Amino acid sequence: RYFHFCKLPGRVMGIRLLRFTSVVIIVLLLVAGALTALLPSIKDDKMPNLKREPKAPSQPALDAFTLIMQTYNRTDLLLKLLNHYQAIPHLHKVIVVWNNVGEKVPEDTWNSLGPHPVPVVFKVQTVNRMRNRLQNFPELETKAVLMMDDDTLVSAHDLAFAFSVWQQFPEQIVGFVPRKHISTPSGIYTYGSFELQSPGSGNGDQYSMVLIGAAFFHSGYLEDFQKQPEAVYALIDETQNCDDIAMNFLVAKNTGKSSGVFVKPVDIRNLEKDTNSGYSGMWHRAEHLLQRSYCVNKLVNIYDGMPLKYSNIMISQFGFPNYANHKNKM
Amino acid sequence: RYFHFCKLPGRVMGIRLLRFTSVVIIVLLLVAGALTALLPSIKDDKMPNLKREPKAPSQPALDAFTLIMQTYNRTDLLLKLLNHYQAIPHLHKVIVVWNNVGEKVPEDTWNSLGPHPVPVVFKVQTVNRMRNRLQNFPELETKAVLMMDDDTLVSAHDLAFAFSVWQQFPEQIVGFVPRKHISTPSGIYTYGSFELQSPGSGNGDQYSMVLIGAAFFHSGYLEDFQKQPEAVYALIDETQNCDDIAMNFLVAKNTGKSSGVFVKPVDIRNLEKDTNSGYSGMWHRAEHLLQRSYCVNKLVNIYDGMPLKYSNIMISQFGFPNYANHKNKM
Repeated sequence: RYFHFCKLPGRVMGIRLLRFTSVVIIVLLLVAGALTALLPSIKDDKMPNLKREPKAPSQPALDAFTLIMQTYNRTDLLLKLLNHYQAIPHLHKVIVVWNNVGEKVPEDTWNSLGPHPVPVVFKVQTVNRMRNRLQNFPELETKAVLMMDDDTLVSAHDLAFAFSVWQQFPEQIVGFVPRKHISTPSGIYTYGSFELQSPGSGNGDQYSMVLIGAAFFHSGYLEDFQKQPEAVYALIDETQNCDDIAMNFLVAKNTGKSSGVFVKPVDIRNLEKDTNSGYSGMWHRAEHLLQRSYCVNKLVNIYDGMPLKYSNIMISQFGFPNYANHKNKM
Repeated sequence: RYFHFCKLPGRVMGIRLLRFTSVVIIVLLLVAGALTALLPSIKDDKMPNLKREPKAPSQPALDAFTLIMQTYNRTDLLLKLLNHYQAIPHLHKVIVVWNNVGEKVPEDTWNSLGPHPVPVVFKVQTVNRMRNRLQNFPELETKAVLMMDDDTLVSAHDLAFAFSVWQQFPEQIVGFVPRKHISTPSGIYTYGSFELQSPGSGNGDQYSMVLIGAAFFHSGYLEDFQKQPEAVYALIDETQNCDDIAMNFLVAKNTGKSSGVFVKPVDIRNLEKDTNSGYSGMWHRAEHLLQRSYCVNKLVNIYDGMPLKYSNIMISQFGFPNYANHKNKM
């Protein structure tokens, strides 16, 4: 019947043709629309959208840590160390405690050299105090804190390992610098390191503190630190020293165990001689060690007892850098 | 009046004299008796009575351990090692598992060379089986067991330290010989030591077992071992091997953690070349290591899964033998 359409009157054929072509056009448009929807979106020159989208909220609290680094008069070392520490595995954020009162934070420099792997927050301080770093910073989101002095460089391997050790001993200060106190017949304590007589019976040494200038500890202890007797703050402010000894007292009292776990560092360096500032750190003061013994005795007074406990456990990373670190004649 | 006694009649004087001398004699005897009582008792040539009295019943269970040493065909090494181990601090008792079927225990020799610091019990076995040492011996009174192979000499310092470490990790096998398993793409496991690829990402090595031939563990695990599937005993008996791998599976399943904690020994020696017997130990058999891989896979089958977990924690004694073991450039 369709072969004979030319015989039909013009008007009828026109309408049929119109319908037919309309249908064809509509079908073609639908197909084109479907194809367009399936095409990949045009990529731009910058990083793909996917990476710039904020990550789905993960759980930073448990498997990451926050670096807290207090700094005074060594901005060159600070920036050098930030370049190193910003890349440590499992680092969530850096909090810089800016003790350079009246001086501008290097935020513009930092931002102009971005992007950075992690956010850095500069906390401007109004007074240059040693205990500024022990505030309970609202920016802290992780359970773990890594506290570092602004002249100390610890290798990424050491930090990754020590963090894994902290996760097994979360109540304690897990770090790289052990110290001890000893008792003397008079009952007066002295603070020191290996050069002091061992508290035990000549069978190796013991430590009773792990310094917080290169250590992991639970962020909850910063909260606890805010609730200490006023005399503790007065002592730290008077000496501009001993905040770390006070933290060890706090932790020991809290756990009834030794306050720290010593992890032997493979690569730890003190950069203070590398600074342009000429500033060489509090521990060079003549009275530094005597002050620390003084602090131990004052704290025993304040806390009405000696809570520090001894340990002789030294932890190293099995087979790192190689198996020689554990081979024996067997 | 007494000056005139010679004037009195003989009888009267005799009686008075008699009384007088009696009194004098009695007084002298009393004085002598008092002096005798105050004299120190005569020391004999052997150890003073005080030391040979049995100690007041203390609490051996918590701060002492029992040494269990299985022995086969190396009685000369056994006796040499007993002389050494009998003097380890905190040792409560020694249990010798006598696998020399049909041969008399050297009890007479042992007794004739007494006294000894601790009691030794010889457990005669009827069949020479590797797993004989994993019985729940009724003589066991302590929470801790020290298990040693009969050719292994570990220094007293190492043992005293490792015991103190076990007290901090009582659920785990704390010892001196770490081993691991690795997974291969086929899902088949292989057993080995440092020569195998690290299970991690090239960042040091890991271990997943601590061998019980030189280790401390909780005596409760001997009780648990009696309740394992029959197939486990059959496997150990078939191979005369792998009892230690089975124990690691047991502990790992029990704790959900790594079965062992490795303590790096300062002085550990294998004495097998020193034996007169010419017997050189199971691990020299050609198929020994292949057998242990076989055991790992069989045990995964029996326990329906791989419970072993990795650890890279290596523990050493702080400042022993001297501070050089922890000093650094800081």
